[in-house]
Amino acid sequence: MPHKLFFTSDYMEGAHPAILRRLAETNMISSPGYGTDEYTAHARDLIRSACGAPEADVFFLTGGTQTNATVIDALLRSYQGVIAADTGHISTHEAGAIELGGHKVLTLPHKDGKITATGIASLIDGFWQDGNHEHMVMPGMVYLSQPTEFGTLYSLAELREISGVCRDRKVPLYVDGARLAYALACPENDVRLPDLAELCDVFYIGGTKCGALFGEAVVIPRHGLIPHFFTIVKQHGALLAKGRIAGIQFETLFTDGLYEAIGTNAIKAADRIRSALKEKGYDLPIASPTNQIFISVDDETYARLQQQVELSFWEKLPAGRTVLRIATSWATVAEAVDALIRIL
Amino acid sequence: MPHKLFFTSDYMEGAHPAILRRLAETNMISSPGYGTDEYTAHARDLIRSACGAPEADVFFLTGGTQTNATVIDALLRSYQGVIAADTGHISTHEAGAIELGGHKVLTLPHKDGKITATGIASLIDGFWQDGNHEHMVMPGMVYLSQPTEFGTLYSLAELREISGVCRDRKVPLYVDGARLAYALACPENDVRLPDLAELCDVFYIGGTKCGALFGEAVVIPRHGLIPHFFTIVKQHGALLAKGRIAGIQFETLFTDGLYEAIGTNAIKAADRIRSALKEKGYDLPIASPTNQIFISVDDETYARLQQQVELSFWEKLPAGRTVLRIATSWATVAEAVDALIRIL
Amino acid sequence: MPHKLFFTSDYMEGAHPAILRRLAETNMISSPGYGTDEYTAHARDLIRSACGAPEADVFFLTGGTQTNATVIDALLRSYQGVIAADTGHISTHEAGAIELGGHKVLTLPHKDGKITATGIASLIDGFWQDGNHEHMVMPGMVYLSQPTEFGTLYSLAELREISGVCRDRKVPLYVDGARLAYALACPENDVRLPDLAELCDVFYIGGTKCGALFGEAVVIPRHGLIPHFFTIVKQHGALLAKGRIAGIQFETLFTDGLYEAIGTNAIKAADRIRSALKEKGYDLPIASPTNQIFISVDDETYARLQQQVELSFWEKLPAGRTVLRIATSWATVAEAVDALIRIL
Amino acid sequence: MPHKLFFTSDYMEGAHPAILRRLAETNMISSPGYGTDEYTAHARDLIRSACGAPEADVFFLTGGTQTNATVIDALLRSYQGVIAADTGHISTHEAGAIELGGHKVLTLPHKDGKITATGIASLIDGFWQDGNHEHMVMPGMVYLSQPTEFGTLYSLAELREISGVCRDRKVPLYVDGARLAYALACPENDVRLPDLAELCDVFYIGGTKCGALFGEAVVIPRHGLIPHFFTIVKQHGALLAKGRIAGIQFETLFTDGLYEAIGTNAIKAADRIRSALKEKGYDLPIASPTNQIFISVDDETYARLQQQVELSFWEKLPAGRTVLRIATSWATVAEAVDALIRIL
Repeated sequence: MPHKLFFTSDYMEGAHPAILRRLAETNMISSPGYGTDEYTAHARDLIRSACGAPEADVFFLTGGTQTNATVIDALLRSYQGVIAADTGHISTHEAGAIELGGHKVLTLPHKDGKITATGIASLIDGFWQDGNHEHMVMPGMVYLSQPTEFGTLYSLAELREISGVCRDRKVPLYVDGARLAYALACPENDVRLPDLAELCDVFYIGGTKCGALFGEAVVIPRHGLIPHFFTIVKQHGALLAKGRIAGIQFETLFTDGLYEAIGTNAIKAADRIRSALKEKGYDLPIASPTNQIFISVDDETYARLQQQVELSFWEKLPAGRTVLRIATSWATVAEAVDALIRIL
Repeated sequence: MPHKLFFTSDYMEGAHPAILRRLAETNMISSPGYGTDEYTAHARDLIRSACGAPEADVFFLTGGTQTNATVIDALLRSYQGVIAADTGHISTHEAGAIELGGHKVLTLPHKDGKITATGIASLIDGFWQDGNHEHMVMPGMVYLSQPTEFGTLYSLAELREISGVCRDRKVPLYVDGARLAYALACPENDVRLPDLAELCDVFYIGGTKCGALFGEAVVIPRHGLIPHFFTIVKQHGALLAKGRIAGIQFETLFTDGLYEAIGTNAIKAADRIRSALKEKGYDLPIASPTNQIFISVDDETYARLQQQVELSFWEKLPAGRTVLRIATSWATVAEAVDALIRIL
Repeated sequence: MPHKLFFTSDYMEGAHPAILRRLAETNMISSPGYGTDEYTAHARDLIRSACGAPEADVFFLTGGTQTNATVIDALLRSYQGVIAADTGHISTHEAGAIELGGHKVLTLPHKDGKITATGIASLIDGFWQDGNHEHMVMPGMVYLSQPTEFGTLYSLAELREISGVCRDRKVPLYVDGARLAYALACPENDVRLPDLAELCDVFYIGGTKCGALFGEAVVIPRHGLIPHFFTIVKQHGALLAKGRIAGIQFETLFTDGLYEAIGTNAIKAADRIRSALKEKGYDLPIASPTNQIFISVDDETYARLQQQVELSFWEKLPAGRTVLRIATSWATVAEAVDALIRIL
Repeated sequence: MPHKLFFTSDYMEGAHPAILRRLAETNMISSPGYGTDEYTAHARDLIRSACGAPEADVFFLTGGTQTNATVIDALLRSYQGVIAADTGHISTHEAGAIELGGHKVLTLPHKDGKITATGIASLIDGFWQDGNHEHMVMPGMVYLSQPTEFGTLYSLAELREISGVCRDRKVPLYVDGARLAYALACPENDVRLPDLAELCDVFYIGGTKCGALFGEAVVIPRHGLIPHFFTIVKQHGALLAKGRIAGIQFETLFTDGLYEAIGTNAIKAADRIRSALKEKGYDLPIASPTNQIFISVDDETYARLQQQVELSFWEKLPAGRTVLRIATSWATVAEAVDALIRIL
């Protein structure tokens, strides 16, 4: 093989070929800007339909941090913060984008990347019961990621319970679906797009990590929940002049089951790798059923793997062990999985 | 012709076909994220070389408003504002993105979209002479666009004079080159990329409006002028996970003279249209030599044109006249120009 | 007289002696913090009663810029701006405090420091009619000052008309009353506190420039218009731990007609000075009826006055003339006015 | 006694009588605004002298949250955060003021309200060693409070070690001295003002909680460390027009040992109460030597105390116990301490 194996992440290649083909087909047709074109309109309809949310507002932004910062700033008032797992992407790896927008991330301790309805309820209720709450940051919304940063999943029952806690307290629920295709395609998953549309106030369907060149589809199931969101997107530097480029990509992803196919490819590859890892006696510290697999290895194994395959360093453990991440994607081919399994 | 003619703007189609071809060629090759790949490295080198600025820092962002907001926030301290023409893009059409970052736009009256060295010097010197200046917003940088929002150009002499005023006062100069290809290709233009690199502290080379799917190349000629700009870009939601998508596009634009060719196509088309307009006795209120042409028409002509071609409404004048904008681009074909001329 | 005469501004001395006396009387009594004490409660009631607004929310902040920044940030959404005269305090002399909160000041040209209902209506209606308004800063509120920075007054008819324009368009109206005592005491004034309560959404009654050590009383005539304003005040660093200090001052100002008496003293002094100025043939470029008087003088007069009295430099005019400001206040004594008149 | 006993906090009364006397004495003298008067100049000199820092920049702001938000925003770049104890005032009780300025509070677990040099070093070094640090919030400064929110003290050795860690890493150290008088007067304390001036980059000497009507003195020992801080203060709404009011208070506090006397009164009262509590077998969960005393009581004792004295509720513990805070101050008289001891 001319190149080293890459299992670093799910954004290591370009786009699913069907997307490039569609961009080429439509390339020279003129259309108006800023997402007012017919491709984008069609993409919106396809997403509304996939979500069973015919009235949903749908917007296409370019990346995850941008989407999180824009949605969170749109949902909160200045004195409100967003509840998230202490391992949530917004808590750790967005370089202060949420704070740049003026908001505190109110963290809850995670378990395998997840937070619970009970934890959320306690934080919110504890705030209102605190005699000093008028001097504190009010919890104004909840942020989850599905799958989480650890590749784990909220079950429908868990999501329903969290949604109930949020609705009882009139606190919007937002789900970051940067890798949503890999949740949807996972046999263990029982949260479908219409469930997200029913249970969340806003969520986004990831494109960048799920086969697009870039792009995230923000879905606001109840039309009009965020007035002037177009302008908010523009003000946050998140509005594409050639909005059609995002629209065409999502139109393609939601045509002929492509988004499902992309997820399925990654999950099948991950499942084969997981089986091999277990067979070979590897330690998998997190039971993640999606396209991210975490292994804990000793120094010798680490050194050996590093020579043959690109993986993500995750963290150093005591006693000379290291956690590494193996990620599959829409682009993972069977031959690469075979090669990886031989190496392991 | 099956479709109506489009001369609305320069972002109505996809990308120059060479870009799509290159994206397809490289599509399945794995590479690291966030602009650390070899395509992006090569694009940086090509741009450094085109600018005669071997030490320049080069970053690829996705759109103009985002780029302006990020660069301006990076250059200013909280108590500083940015000097711009009252018609500048940041003054009028960025939905408050600069203010969201905490900064005032200090406007100067424009002439054909331009501001002058004298005007800038007076604003800055006037600030420091004002007995109350400690209670006012300090001018912290200057923003120009080349070409301007009116399609006009700063000459090299003008730019040199403005740069001198800025350097004498230690105020950075930033040039928004959203449509820079159309300036560079214009016979009247005498400001080359190396001149920008010499005279500006930061500038950007536009991709979105000059043949790319999206993307703007920020050039900081003096390496290290903005420490931690990578993180600033991330914090502003402007960092692409698949950085290579922007890198590959700029690599293509700066290979085999494509950026020049794109500009030349638009300018030739615009020149043919300008000649026809003059011949037919149209009123051109602004002497713009680039790819944007402004005409002032009566109601009858407006109605007639609207039926046959998509143009941009610009503004209403007294006495029933309307200013319209005709824009050409890399995508404008000779047949469309012929068709437009027949209609005019 | 041992000291040079001071007519520089209305914040050159401490507080009205009645305020100091009341602070001393109450000094050792313990009371709860953050404005939850009985003095502050009483001050709120006195202000509600003076405004004929029994349901009003009343908050005490420490200074004008702080009050403007806090109220404006509370009333606007991120993508909205505030309409103000180009000479308004928030436009010129607040060091970017409004922009620090993320908001653009949308300026209208002033006439003697004032803007008009027509100008406001045109700006708002023009915004909504502009085809690009989704890319622009939405006018979200109107800021006036009464008296203005030029000492001029809005008449009740003018204020009523502006209020009508605002209510028709659902745009809140906010009045900065930093020097309100000097408007209320002015014979030409026909805008009373109950008129402000009827016609504005928020206004503030100035203390700092009207006899207090510091403090501004924000009045929100319709209870609950700004939810969680207490927390917004805290977040903006504007909440006093010893809230009673502000409460006691406003309690005193609104007891036994002190606020009126303070205004009257200043206006009478100003009227005497205005008569003398006219008699002596001075040029008064602005017809300001309140406690600020503007004179335009030649270099020789300027030099002569500077030796004997402290005045505010306002601006340089062509032809060697200078505009100076003379300000009276609650603290201006008859002997000082006599002395000034002798000098003029 | 006509009133219930108040041991709730140290901001329950007005000001030390010497301050009111001095305000009255100087009341009618005219002086220029914004802290440019001679009283403020004198106060600055007295503070410079007390700190052994003749070159220090000294500014007077009005309250603690405001001071913290202004200083932190002035010291950090947009992408930087401030390290603080998870119990720090900025972490918990400032309503998001730090985040409103765009900055994350990077929390470390506390021990009795304190953080350690080791903890700080690990957070900073861990950041730079993290492969993803360019996607994370950079630690840009350290915030301590002396005494802490738990009334505990950093020893000189601890402070010196923390300062060393900060200087080695070029990270400024900022100390919040809201209750500094009560640290300085404490027999266990070995950190003097000159030590703070030597070891910190910025600190503030609290007035509001230490005998002033309001006011905090920001000390920047190295002149010019924060350029344009005056304007930053103004932009944050923290500049007093009548700057002299703060100046006169600090002039008084730093004349004839008043600041020390104020601290001493509170500490002596607290020491008497602490002795009585220990004698009577109360549980003191935190060994705090300053003016804040924490006791953990059962429900019956809680109910009994509540009827006779105002204390601060702190938190609920398991097993029906409650933590209460008793605070003394400059205003605590011996009779009140006697009365409290009888009740306990």
